Amino acid sequence: MQHKPLQLHPDRLFSSDPAVRDLARSLYAEIKDLPIISPHGHTDPRWFAYDQNFGNASELFIRPDHYVFRMLYSQGISLESLGIRRQDGAPVEQDPRKIWDLFAENFYLFRGTPSRMWLDTVFSQVFGLDVALTPDTASHYYDVITNALATPAFKPRALMDRFNIEVIATTEGALDLLEHHQAIEGTPWAKRVITTFRPDDVVDASREDFVDNIAKLGEITGEDTSSWQGYLAAIRNRREYFRRFGATATDHGHPTALTANLSVAECEALFAKCISGKSSEGEQELFRGQMLTELAGMSIEDGMVMQIHPGAFRNHNPVIFDNFGRDKGADIPSQTEYVHALKPLLEKYGNNPKLNIILFTLDETVYARELAPLAGHYPCLKLGPAWWFHDSPEGMLRFRHQVTETAGFYNTVGFNDDTRAFLSIPARHDVARRIDCRFLAQLIAEHRITEEEGHALAYDLTYRLAKKAYKLGE
Amino acid sequence: MQHKPLQLHPDRLFSSDPAVRDLARSLYAEIKDLPIISPHGHTDPRWFAYDQNFGNASELFIRPDHYVFRMLYSQGISLESLGIRRQDGAPVEQDPRKIWDLFAENFYLFRGTPSRMWLDTVFSQVFGLDVALTPDTASHYYDVITNALATPAFKPRALMDRFNIEVIATTEGALDLLEHHQAIEGTPWAKRVITTFRPDDVVDASREDFVDNIAKLGEITGEDTSSWQGYLAAIRNRREYFRRFGATATDHGHPTALTANLSVAECEALFAKCISGKSSEGEQELFRGQMLTELAGMSIEDGMVMQIHPGAFRNHNPVIFDNFGRDKGADIPSQTEYVHALKPLLEKYGNNPKLNIILFTLDETVYARELAPLAGHYPCLKLGPAWWFHDSPEGMLRFRHQVTETAGFYNTVGFNDDTRAFLSIPARHDVARRIDCRFLAQLIAEHRITEEEGHALAYDLTYRLAKKAYKLGE
Amino acid sequence: MQHKPLQLHPDRLFSSDPAVRDLARSLYAEIKDLPIISPHGHTDPRWFAYDQNFGNASELFIRPDHYVFRMLYSQGISLESLGIRRQDGAPVEQDPRKIWDLFAENFYLFRGTPSRMWLDTVFSQVFGLDVALTPDTASHYYDVITNALATPAFKPRALMDRFNIEVIATTEGALDLLEHHQAIEGTPWAKRVITTFRPDDVVDASREDFVDNIAKLGEITGEDTSSWQGYLAAIRNRREYFRRFGATATDHGHPTALTANLSVAECEALFAKCISGKSSEGEQELFRGQMLTELAGMSIEDGMVMQIHPGAFRNHNPVIFDNFGRDKGADIPSQTEYVHALKPLLEKYGNNPKLNIILFTLDETVYARELAPLAGHYPCLKLGPAWWFHDSPEGMLRFRHQVTETAGFYNTVGFNDDTRAFLSIPARHDVARRIDCRFLAQLIAEHRITEEEGHALAYDLTYRLAKKAYKLGE
Repeated sequence: MQHKPLQLHPDRLFSSDPAVRDLARSLYAEIKDLPIISPHGHTDPRWFAYDQNFGNASELFIRPDHYVFRMLYSQGISLESLGIRRQDGAPVEQDPRKIWDLFAENFYLFRGTPSRMWLDTVFSQVFGLDVALTPDTASHYYDVITNALATPAFKPRALMDRFNIEVIATTEGALDLLEHHQAIEGTPWAKRVITTFRPDDVVDASREDFVDNIAKLGEITGEDTSSWQGYLAAIRNRREYFRRFGATATDHGHPTALTANLSVAECEALFAKCISGKSSEGEQELFRGQMLTELAGMSIEDGMVMQIHPGAFRNHNPVIFDNFGRDKGADIPSQTEYVHALKPLLEKYGNNPKLNIILFTLDETVYARELAPLAGHYPCLKLGPAWWFHDSPEGMLRFRHQVTETAGFYNTVGFNDDTRAFLSIPARHDVARRIDCRFLAQLIAEHRITEEEGHALAYDLTYRLAKKAYKLGE
Repeated sequence: MQHKPLQLHPDRLFSSDPAVRDLARSLYAEIKDLPIISPHGHTDPRWFAYDQNFGNASELFIRPDHYVFRMLYSQGISLESLGIRRQDGAPVEQDPRKIWDLFAENFYLFRGTPSRMWLDTVFSQVFGLDVALTPDTASHYYDVITNALATPAFKPRALMDRFNIEVIATTEGALDLLEHHQAIEGTPWAKRVITTFRPDDVVDASREDFVDNIAKLGEITGEDTSSWQGYLAAIRNRREYFRRFGATATDHGHPTALTANLSVAECEALFAKCISGKSSEGEQELFRGQMLTELAGMSIEDGMVMQIHPGAFRNHNPVIFDNFGRDKGADIPSQTEYVHALKPLLEKYGNNPKLNIILFTLDETVYARELAPLAGHYPCLKLGPAWWFHDSPEGMLRFRHQVTETAGFYNTVGFNDDTRAFLSIPARHDVARRIDCRFLAQLIAEHRITEEEGHALAYDLTYRLAKKAYKLGE
Repeated sequence: MQHKPLQLHPDRLFSSDPAVRDLARSLYAEIKDLPIISPHGHTDPRWFAYDQNFGNASELFIRPDHYVFRMLYSQGISLESLGIRRQDGAPVEQDPRKIWDLFAENFYLFRGTPSRMWLDTVFSQVFGLDVALTPDTASHYYDVITNALATPAFKPRALMDRFNIEVIATTEGALDLLEHHQAIEGTPWAKRVITTFRPDDVVDASREDFVDNIAKLGEITGEDTSSWQGYLAAIRNRREYFRRFGATATDHGHPTALTANLSVAECEALFAKCISGKSSEGEQELFRGQMLTELAGMSIEDGMVMQIHPGAFRNHNPVIFDNFGRDKGADIPSQTEYVHALKPLLEKYGNNPKLNIILFTLDETVYARELAPLAGHYPCLKLGPAWWFHDSPEGMLRFRHQVTETAGFYNTVGFNDDTRAFLSIPARHDVARRIDCRFLAQLIAEHRITEEEGHALAYDLTYRLAKKAYKLGE
């Protein structure tokens, strides 16, 4: 039987206009092999700490990837049939080959999506597969991938080297003891695998576990977290602890970009209400907003870079949340305002030369209207790359087209892969590199920058800006 | 005198990049002659029931087409001079030749608009005109068109065949007795001309005729529509009646996408308030929202596909509304939110495999931010094509560019012409086919999908997805 | 030492697709030398009244241009080091050469921005510079520019002729005595340099000087501005005075597009509250909204064209505002709604054939959703060009792509340079002409308009529509 070939075209994602394509090729040739800087993501530190082999193809590619099963679910395929574990322990499909076959059968659904491109790139470049994934080749795929995963060359640290990842940041909650990072501490890997401080669990009073978390925060730090000042001291304590494990940045995943600037007395009262477990939604929102401002103040003190990732309506589908838990593809973006929302924080700290905030959005309407003008004025603000649903060729192009004219390139910070799918990291960075080269090639072809400037920019966007913005060395 | 030629270029709407254009040509060649599926529109069932000739050129092209007279009105041309009937019976221009001359004189205003493209296509392909419409050719146009319309070849059924329309859905209100569909019933045409159930008249309590409509609904169905349960039973009764005339879908043109999920007691009280004629705007909005959820429940019962078309501010210009009535080009889109608005309905029914909802929007900012993520997760949701003001080459391209990466192609439903302009139907479908081929050609040229996949997708987008989504046969 | 050349490519900003580029070249060749119509801008009437030489390079290019120092500030360069005057008189950099060197050193930050393109065009075409601005060429640049500025050929009136500016409108507040326009009155220049009536200072009750301004308005006009009727009469009086100095238009820079339609009694009470100095934010907003409707009424009486420029959050950064004052690059766009906001005004006057309103926006999401449908229906509405942050190649393309299909070309009004940077005016108009030709070339290449239509449109967009919309002669 004749299988369809799987071939990654060397010009993929470049413009098909020959003049622009040739310029893109030339820019890309010079930056495609630069080391990967991965300053924001969600890989598991255990991989790098203990260097165990990954499992089978389904375990690696389907069960952890909500981009994948979200799309399958949208077309009527149950999460149970994909082996996604239920919270109630009810039976789900256990046979990884059956799961893989179901995936292969429906792989056509991903046509035109970034998941399709990332997966094909991994199949081809990481596993050397040269036929397309179809129902006919599903078994072959399963065997090739699962066999390879059992070899030393496919252990996490070997892949780190093969992928040429210079540094990767994981993300941990404020209560995480960083035991896996402790296992790395003192080894040469400690410079390459760093943590990021994400305190949503002790800042978001709408969480069911918030009151408990504040108590635990007190236990871990030895501070009296029943008082506002003790709570702040505990957070400072945790920031310092995280910095010991390489953290240069914090991360904040709030529903909105709201910030606040309350008096100390108001903060004390609001905090007391929140830890009483009886706060209203409005008070919880205000508290998150106040905490962004407090955390900005701490960033000025300790130099950590602040990342703000607002705008996701988490767990929109309660049936999925109740049965399968968080991060199951049911988070939906919603409209997000920045100009009024950030004003209290910016009024207090916006002109402080020690503050560094990287803003992200799921609402592309703010690129040209709000974010580029804000970043094009305030010295503390830079713009993170196209995020999540917009981490895609079209999304990245919209970002550059809408942001560059007002914010320039130097108020942006290079690429974030933001992924828990470790094997896809080179593929994701490659998409970003190709799209940046494509965009720069267009500017050159239209005589809007010189070719020499294009080359300098390609280097900066691929490598230098990420290191600089996240304080990972010049 | 030398007239300007009217020539439809075979490559129109394709990219001018030769590589992309050639791919588009090849995709288009295979799907351009596929039958037309028209699952949502506003043609008059009388045409197909009684097969009478159409009138003159002005009667056909100007008076019923609010796209046309809206633009003319915006440039200071009165509706009276275009022969649009006034509600008060005051005189308006009666001479169709004078109206046609005025139109020809101002035809340049349509440069760059889809109306221009549709009209030119009809002039050329339906009437064989080979000179451009200008003041100099106005008389020639009027004669050619008016004479042709009097011939048997231009009767509605003959045009249905000539246009290769496999099936067309009209849209009727809940109180419509479907007498024209009755006239078709039992003939071979009944399979090709079907109705759609649009119950806005008995769901929207803000309408002046709402209370009367509910009473009529009771009379027609024999149900006691003074009670909430009787009202629901009456709607179920009408849905069943509409299905007898081929209806596979319902349609809902609400100001917003709000849904609600009230208790039965709350519904009873709200319904009672609404039929008292004393409901507030907020109550009317809540009632529409509750009814979307009720209607979704009925769709699960009877299998009808639900179309939601929110976001038009109807009759924005009261002078036009008072003098000329509805649908006179004074409907203006406004911002429309879906993520919070649909949550009550989705919480109740969003994971039910029997539910099928097709979402439309006039607010393009939600394509990538809200609609694609929702449709890329919920099994009940699919996305309708670019609608109304966005049913245009640029609008369709924005739709595909912004939706595909998150929702894929298979959460979309092909094209709707949504028109009352019967003669323009092939032209409108042709624009959609060309733009889809253009978009697919770009993906192929940039090595994002294979050529083979492009061909499969072109077929699906043109023919298969519409039939499947609207349950018109595989 | 080998300096990098500065070369303006003749095809800059055209598509790199050869077919589209060649069409753009041909369109551009015919319109590039048409006279400049500048119906909306912020040049200083003193320049044209007294024809004094400009100062040095830094004084001309940096100190007055908030596009320039905004970007430098965003990258941590203090305004003091750029010589921007502080309100408290504290010392700032005085040496224009040091300022120029700092600018040259950071000129790379502007890569990809319109400022970069405008500046390069001025450097090359106005000053004949043929090397790029870098730290190495900074001194050369400073000398060439500063020396040239001292010559007669670089006096304002000589540049007006050299730039082929047929007419330019300045913008003055309602209390301005127009003394510089008086100095021009009676000379041949009076036809070329006209004023525009911008009454924000006497309409916006949120201004600290509002109460004083109303008193001054009374003094200037001899009307009793403590009464609503006297206040309106005073505004009418000022409008008439401005028309004596050529004004054909008014301009309104409100935070939102809100309009209102209150009874006379309500107006009287609201006005009394506003001039008491004790109005709330809500009352101030309502008053601005009512005044837009009043001013529309006056436009119907006196024929002045009304420009509405809403949506800027002015002085977002209080540190900058307190230390340096207004217009220092800290104005940020925010979301702006038009459909509901304009309804009261449109209900009252929207169908009056004597009313002409030109709408602008900083919120591009409204182009296709709100503005094009409104302008494509209401005879009084036309759309101003892409404004401020969107006055850029990408911004202009988005405008045309999103507006044309619904509003056509003839509901737009050509280009506004909107600038106080006099030397950049030809560069700015050139960008608009190139982008319009590029857009038209694409429509021709895709067979959406004919080549003949493209040429007619290029002329209209460059020259005729601006003259017509602003009543500057046919």
